[in-house]
Amino acid sequence: MKLVDYLKQQGRLIDRALIKFLPADNSLIACAMRYSICAGGKRLRPILVIEGARLCGGTVAQVLPAACALEFIHTYSLIHDDLPAMDNDDLRRGKPTSHKKFGEAAAILAGDALLTDAFRLMSVCADNKRNRPERVVEATAVLSVAAGYRGMIGGQAKDTIEQGTWHKKSISLAKRDIEYIHLTKTAALIQASLVVGATLAGATSLQKTALNSYGRNIGLAFQIADDILDLTADKKLLGKRGSDRENNKLTYPALYGIEGSRQLSEKLIKEAKGNIRLFKQASMLEQLADYIVERKY
Amino acid sequence: MKLVDYLKQQGRLIDRALIKFLPADNSLIACAMRYSICAGGKRLRPILVIEGARLCGGTVAQVLPAACALEFIHTYSLIHDDLPAMDNDDLRRGKPTSHKKFGEAAAILAGDALLTDAFRLMSVCADNKRNRPERVVEATAVLSVAAGYRGMIGGQAKDTIEQGTWHKKSISLAKRDIEYIHLTKTAALIQASLVVGATLAGATSLQKTALNSYGRNIGLAFQIADDILDLTADKKLLGKRGSDRENNKLTYPALYGIEGSRQLSEKLIKEAKGNIRLFKQASMLEQLADYIVERKY
Repeated sequence: MKLVDYLKQQGRLIDRALIKFLPADNSLIACAMRYSICAGGKRLRPILVIEGARLCGGTVAQVLPAACALEFIHTYSLIHDDLPAMDNDDLRRGKPTSHKKFGEAAAILAGDALLTDAFRLMSVCADNKRNRPERVVEATAVLSVAAGYRGMIGGQAKDTIEQGTWHKKSISLAKRDIEYIHLTKTAALIQASLVVGATLAGATSLQKTALNSYGRNIGLAFQIADDILDLTADKKLLGKRGSDRENNKLTYPALYGIEGSRQLSEKLIKEAKGNIRLFKQASMLEQLADYIVERKY
Repeated sequence: MKLVDYLKQQGRLIDRALIKFLPADNSLIACAMRYSICAGGKRLRPILVIEGARLCGGTVAQVLPAACALEFIHTYSLIHDDLPAMDNDDLRRGKPTSHKKFGEAAAILAGDALLTDAFRLMSVCADNKRNRPERVVEATAVLSVAAGYRGMIGGQAKDTIEQGTWHKKSISLAKRDIEYIHLTKTAALIQASLVVGATLAGATSLQKTALNSYGRNIGLAFQIADDILDLTADKKLLGKRGSDRENNKLTYPALYGIEGSRQLSEKLIKEAKGNIRLFKQASMLEQLADYIVERKY
């Protein structure tokens, strides 16, 4: 099967599971939770949870709640990132952001609810007998570290709070900072997706380390590609364009140029493919690595 | 030992553990996390975690990370509640609120970080061999439901978003709503505190049910007492006063009068004491029930 078709098929499977795990009532918060989760997106993180499990002998059914947990956390982070006090974005994927549609209080609470529910979904994994409780605990620990202060939130904090102060820094310091931001804000959750899936499936340390390194490399490459797209992509495809520039954000193209950024990203993809050599059936992850730098939106 | 001395002693123990589990660096988010956690408070929820465990044969050491997780979640909820888009409070326990001191972005992120880290602390419980992994998973599930959409966040949403619309409702509808808000926004986390501790200690269903009912009753009584204090207490002791009235919030005194509210609260305390009759060494919980309605701040 071609990668694009495979991603679409997996995406539909995940969409159905997401709906099942969301509240079904018509309260403002439930509507806001559903609105942001159902706004589309590539479902990259859930697909990586499933792929991490599959490569280590696990099943889709076994990790589906965890896959949805990763999408819940990714979505909550977008809702809070878009808030007026943070990036102050009006559009996300071509649609009004959560606070534009439901008000700021509802957006904050819907984000909080998705984050909290993500950990409920991790516990739900234990209902499947294939998931040994100690593995559920380990996977929950991996997720909470990656999403927390030492991971995604740390990166988001540096990105938001130091906005507009970059011109005061030396190039070498700025390069170190942008790598830290992308590794924590984006790569950490991508790494966690693969490792959560692998952990539930009972992976060896070697397998988990390999997937973690692969995740680090594609995560960083993915974010560099995002920075480039923010400058070059068609606004209609992306749903927004140039908001990094408007927000005076530090980006790879600003420090390395567009061509330099492309080269860096290709180097990371090559490394990522090397990381997963130990798996026999990793062609999907290999193709995915290429897809990440070649995507148009 | 007198209850007040016991609470102080336990509070100091918990304060030391909280510091140990907080990030130690000087980033803005780490400072904001420490600031709100260290702003004081009665540490009621952590004490209840320990008490729930103790009554079911557990040890303090075994549940200390979970006790801190409950305080992390309680504190994050206060930080987000105080935000301009929510209750818009400038003071909390007599000190500037998080967003007043660190800015809105940092306050949102510090809250997110405390919530996420709470679930990391739940995983940390598994490092203690007394905590069987399946009990850690069960306790994590209890906490995520109580703190989430069906619990605390649901109550907070109704409280914040329906602010100022109460006069349009019938008294009986308003009475139903205020009970729902207090049960979800306050009682749910108090119940979870007791049940999390009990679950880790390997409690029976009967023990968990008893503690859950006790928690419901003291939780509701606690919040009614809070509503009364908001109207009557010394501003210096409380750190703020009358902000419920300023925010046009629905309260028990507004619906039942101060005397009616006191009677309701005493009835709940009596029920709470009945709930824990099956425990032989529950004198601390009995005294605590009385303390909750008698406290002055």
